[in-house]
Amino acid sequence: MANLLQFLIPKDKKFFPLLEKSSNNLVAVSKVLYELLTTASLEKRRELTREIERLEHVGDNITHEIVHELSLTFITPFDREDIHALTSALDDIVDYIYGSSKRIETYKVEIISTEIIKLAELIEKAAIELNGAIIALKNMKNVNKIKEASVKIHSIENHADDIFDMAVARLFDEEKDAIKIIKMKEILSVLETATDKCEDAANVIESIIVKNA
Amino acid sequence: MANLLQFLIPKDKKFFPLLEKSSNNLVAVSKVLYELLTTASLEKRRELTREIERLEHVGDNITHEIVHELSLTFITPFDREDIHALTSALDDIVDYIYGSSKRIETYKVEIISTEIIKLAELIEKAAIELNGAIIALKNMKNVNKIKEASVKIHSIENHADDIFDMAVARLFDEEKDAIKIIKMKEILSVLETATDKCEDAANVIESIIVKNA
Amino acid sequence: MANLLQFLIPKDKKFFPLLEKSSNNLVAVSKVLYELLTTASLEKRRELTREIERLEHVGDNITHEIVHELSLTFITPFDREDIHALTSALDDIVDYIYGSSKRIETYKVEIISTEIIKLAELIEKAAIELNGAIIALKNMKNVNKIKEASVKIHSIENHADDIFDMAVARLFDEEKDAIKIIKMKEILSVLETATDKCEDAANVIESIIVKNA
Repeated sequence: MANLLQFLIPKDKKFFPLLEKSSNNLVAVSKVLYELLTTASLEKRRELTREIERLEHVGDNITHEIVHELSLTFITPFDREDIHALTSALDDIVDYIYGSSKRIETYKVEIISTEIIKLAELIEKAAIELNGAIIALKNMKNVNKIKEASVKIHSIENHADDIFDMAVARLFDEEKDAIKIIKMKEILSVLETATDKCEDAANVIESIIVKNA
Repeated sequence: MANLLQFLIPKDKKFFPLLEKSSNNLVAVSKVLYELLTTASLEKRRELTREIERLEHVGDNITHEIVHELSLTFITPFDREDIHALTSALDDIVDYIYGSSKRIETYKVEIISTEIIKLAELIEKAAIELNGAIIALKNMKNVNKIKEASVKIHSIENHADDIFDMAVARLFDEEKDAIKIIKMKEILSVLETATDKCEDAANVIESIIVKNA
Repeated sequence: MANLLQFLIPKDKKFFPLLEKSSNNLVAVSKVLYELLTTASLEKRRELTREIERLEHVGDNITHEIVHELSLTFITPFDREDIHALTSALDDIVDYIYGSSKRIETYKVEIISTEIIKLAELIEKAAIELNGAIIALKNMKNVNKIKEASVKIHSIENHADDIFDMAVARLFDEEKDAIKIIKMKEILSVLETATDKCEDAANVIESIIVKNA
């Protein structure tokens, strides 16, 4: 399969560039989120929230383009279900990042806890690893690099789980205002789900590797 | 494919009638929900809640019938995954409508906010568009009508998103009782998810069009 | 198909043993949950929470093994999508059981309501039925036994729904502390979702039966 794949790849001018575009956009969104959470200026925060919104639309368009191409293309560089699943996972991560920024705005959250910043940091790290794995997927040469990225993403997701658990425990211990608990717990949960979706994307990439290696 | 499809369709006595039955039922449920939310009589509201419950069971049975037929039928009018996905999406919409009525009852909500009524109105509109698209799907002639319905459903879903965001922002601004926030936020969220599921159904219909046009 | 299947089965040394291992593990987890919820000793409860955590990891490894085997195996005893869906459903049930025990610990819940214990009892019953159905699936002889198990699981899920609804209604009626409502509602919801996932697994098993009977 690997040889056949390498033979087919030069002809694939569609899916790899689009997937790379999608994961580049994901990295961009994750960087804006981190910036938004660490800026002291509320004015700047508002701007960055609009920027995430804009990038979410960009991501949506890339997703639609891939889904449309999939419906038109008979031969794909790897299983069409895998392309679809990877595309959806990348789209989901961006959606959850956008969801967290939207809630911070809607809920008028002013103080950003260290755990929220830590989760955003982990999402950015996972996005960079995903992006590297997707670029490496293009020539299927650097299988080890892809596997390493995948291992790192699983460990990032475990780390995010622990941070989420501790943050929720601390929230119930320290915060006595139920309305604030509702808001903060949901933001933490949306960010933690973003790292779950990074793991979903890594699982798809792993399964592509297994089938084509 | 279109010709082959038109050749096959006269033989399809199973899936189109069942899908239409399912989307007719969806329209019926969405109308009862709107009635329930706008009636002043608590007695009438209780009756309509039971009626939604009954129609949800009707929908369940149609869904089971389609899934059962799918497992027995080798040649389907379009991809079996698409029939399955469309069936599930229609079933999900009805489930979320039922879920909203059940919560209004369980949570003993007496005052229905304008945003809740607006969301129910949008769900009914989307249901009617879906129903029209599914009827048009049967003869594959009126592709433009199907595309228009799909565009309308996407715009309905965007509108529902905005209403949900504004309703939640207003809830946190005006309501100081955390228990009421929990109840209202969940009902709004269930209704908004119903419009997401309408969009899922529209996406499946679009992909059927693309593959068979 | 049934004959072909019976011809193929003696060669399947992979999937049936692994699925059985997975459903055995599920039964074990569900028993520990019930024990955890009914013990009076907080010390013992802590131990059993760790035990569920350990079994969740065991389940994860079985799941990864099945997914890995699926990617390597060309001929499977039944549709690979069905093996994958059944594996995921079993994995999800264990995840939700683990999720409930983790929340009881994180939220420092001391008093376990009768509804929570009742839901855990239903999960254990459904797990035992699933386990029996999966063992019976191996030789495809006892189709009636599988169908009976499936009917029981559907009825267990309906029962769990009713208990959940009543528990949430009672919670809003009796509990005036919003923070406690948040905690208890979420634990009830996670347990109820575990029974939904049991139903998902039963649905996959039913569809396997229909296709191969």
